[in-house]
Amino acid sequence: MAVRFYNAKILTSPYDEPFDGEVVTEGERIARILPKGACAARLFDREVDCGGHLLMSGFCNAHSHAAMCLLRGAADDLPLEEWLYERVFPVEEKLTPEDIYWGAMLQMAEFVRAGITCFADMYFGLDSVFEAAKCANLCVALCGGDNSSSEIDVLKYMEEMYTKYSTLSDRVRYFPGLHAEYTCTDRLIERVADFAAEAGARTYIHLSETLKEVGDCTVRHGGLTPPQYLHKLGFFDNGGLAAHCVYCDRDDLDLLRQCGVTPVVNGASNLKLASGIAPVSAMLRAGMSPALGTDGMASNNAASMFREMYLYSCLQKGTLKDAAAVGAEQALAAATCSGYAALGFDGGTLHEGGFADMVLVDMSAPNMQPQCDVCKALVYSADVGNVLMTVAGGKVVYDRGFYCIGEDFACIVKECSSRRARLLDL
Amino acid sequence: MAVRFYNAKILTSPYDEPFDGEVVTEGERIARILPKGACAARLFDREVDCGGHLLMSGFCNAHSHAAMCLLRGAADDLPLEEWLYERVFPVEEKLTPEDIYWGAMLQMAEFVRAGITCFADMYFGLDSVFEAAKCANLCVALCGGDNSSSEIDVLKYMEEMYTKYSTLSDRVRYFPGLHAEYTCTDRLIERVADFAAEAGARTYIHLSETLKEVGDCTVRHGGLTPPQYLHKLGFFDNGGLAAHCVYCDRDDLDLLRQCGVTPVVNGASNLKLASGIAPVSAMLRAGMSPALGTDGMASNNAASMFREMYLYSCLQKGTLKDAAAVGAEQALAAATCSGYAALGFDGGTLHEGGFADMVLVDMSAPNMQPQCDVCKALVYSADVGNVLMTVAGGKVVYDRGFYCIGEDFACIVKECSSRRARLLDL
Repeated sequence: MAVRFYNAKILTSPYDEPFDGEVVTEGERIARILPKGACAARLFDREVDCGGHLLMSGFCNAHSHAAMCLLRGAADDLPLEEWLYERVFPVEEKLTPEDIYWGAMLQMAEFVRAGITCFADMYFGLDSVFEAAKCANLCVALCGGDNSSSEIDVLKYMEEMYTKYSTLSDRVRYFPGLHAEYTCTDRLIERVADFAAEAGARTYIHLSETLKEVGDCTVRHGGLTPPQYLHKLGFFDNGGLAAHCVYCDRDDLDLLRQCGVTPVVNGASNLKLASGIAPVSAMLRAGMSPALGTDGMASNNAASMFREMYLYSCLQKGTLKDAAAVGAEQALAAATCSGYAALGFDGGTLHEGGFADMVLVDMSAPNMQPQCDVCKALVYSADVGNVLMTVAGGKVVYDRGFYCIGEDFACIVKECSSRRARLLDL
Repeated sequence: MAVRFYNAKILTSPYDEPFDGEVVTEGERIARILPKGACAARLFDREVDCGGHLLMSGFCNAHSHAAMCLLRGAADDLPLEEWLYERVFPVEEKLTPEDIYWGAMLQMAEFVRAGITCFADMYFGLDSVFEAAKCANLCVALCGGDNSSSEIDVLKYMEEMYTKYSTLSDRVRYFPGLHAEYTCTDRLIERVADFAAEAGARTYIHLSETLKEVGDCTVRHGGLTPPQYLHKLGFFDNGGLAAHCVYCDRDDLDLLRQCGVTPVVNGASNLKLASGIAPVSAMLRAGMSPALGTDGMASNNAASMFREMYLYSCLQKGTLKDAAAVGAEQALAAATCSGYAALGFDGGTLHEGGFADMVLVDMSAPNMQPQCDVCKALVYSADVGNVLMTVAGGKVVYDRGFYCIGEDFACIVKECSSRRARLLDL
């Protein structure tokens, strides 16, 4: 199916100037990007008038736990330890694959409303998350093991997942991974590292999220920080992604960069769980290209990459007392091309041959006027309400309040409400 | 004119439980608030089906410079001093009353799209700001002097403004005020203080926004901080509002509380201008009820009270490492009732006899599901895109993308674009 998205202002990447033109998609990919006046000279299955609005890459949410949508607002105003061990883990023990599917479907709806076309999801029951992502046509990186306590079972699950998802489609990946240093034995970390080395796979983990995590790790492991400890066990030998990295010092960051590890920054979640503020400016100075994530909805509590971009830039300005600390282009790159690249998907910029993962942003809304630098408007001024349309893999999955994600939105809400009530004993 | 807003979930204040019911307005005020099933037994000029969504108080933006909408994105990534003296003040010298009117009209459009029904505006050319507020039917507190360098002219302007606006309407107020300690002489501050004392008026000022401001003040004034210095000159003898208060220590806060001064917190602007983070938790512990503001659009760069509420709560959690530091109810109060109360308007909660300043929030959007605590959903999860309708003084001024603010929106955008080009020599 060939679709023409015409009458658009096109932003191909955070570092290019926008121009008037059109994008032609063929199936799930971009076939042509044409300046205004050029003509594709062919017939299309559908023509979409972009109304002069901004057509750009969809966002990559590089750290999520989609099914936790079910628990949004269920445990607010608590620090991470209490939140995780006393409130989240007990409920998660009750989750069925169907719960995970419906929670993830609600997250898909929220994602497409917010222009998110690609995500990395760390959870158990990942088959259900994949089904939801497939329904919504999003790119998904499935990350982590299951919640089994047996090493053998964890490894078996990883092998199965890797075999199953590595060749299934260009729009799905599997990353072997573990929740965090503090939930694993040395032996398990080493075995996952061995598996990743053999498979040639990058790993995924929560890393240095709280000061307590770092302190406990150094006590347990002879003064080694979580990055040093994981590196020692070979966990990052093939590169990977590390969510949070709030308490990484310069040595940690240099080590992670040398290992080819991409930090995934989750500003909103780290604030709300009272963890702290990740050293984004130091990451950039260390030559890293951080990705950006929202984390799960029980800790954020919204999947807005606009809010994340704002925090990515402005938390650094405000805390380092440097108004130029992190610029808008860098924030937009973290939210788009850096995430896609870290997850190994051919998107994050608009280019011929790449995925047709796109978002149409309303530049005529009052908060985007008078028109100025597009990147700055996206990072400092835009909100989720400015998203008019989301295109994932060439398919329009969201259009001005209407969802086309394989399940009826009202049905998703109904399923999630009743499942939440059961899980929380309401 | 009597209007019935029925089939609503009604939140009368941040501290009350929402209930199903309806609100009847009569002219600019709320006549009745009825639970579902009760009947107003009368005829209405209009009946509005709220579709089961949340009907609550409109937001009070207690610190803005509406006309600066013209300069959105014109001077990003700069610290406050350079931003103000090198980029903003030179452009402001060129502003005509018509520029101020059209810039403020764009801000009115942005305000009503974001559910803001009341605002305090500190600027020169306040007659033009008042005209814009009147067009959009918003409550407005006009604050400050003009930009004259003559004391006599400043005082004359204040007297004129106070006389003109104090008896004009219940929906407008005038607060004598000054830009900041660092732009004034002792003599001017004393004369404004005398004027405020005679008139029985509260004052308005930018206060302790940056560390430099506090340091310079202590050097100039024998170790006195800006609050201490202004107090010494009598500026706060009749109470007032102080925008920012980023660098107020416990003694400063106690002094301000004793003087009846309400701090107005501007989290987004303070981050973006690299000023810092206001001590909101300490303000609350000191027994204050801070109001919330967006500041002008050249420093924020969006008028989202949702973003401000999020920052008001979560910046404290993240920096104090206390997930319970500032709760959602406190953030919602700052954005509604505390602002209305500080400005002296009869709104900020829904109550019979009070202003019909209301916002209808979409609780069915995916980011607001599954439904949970309403305050937490509003502060942690909601975005401007969740605003369906805004009612100001009993009049529907915004309804799902349509503006009813006295000027055509396309005309506002056109005027602002051409005026911006002239001002910035584009």
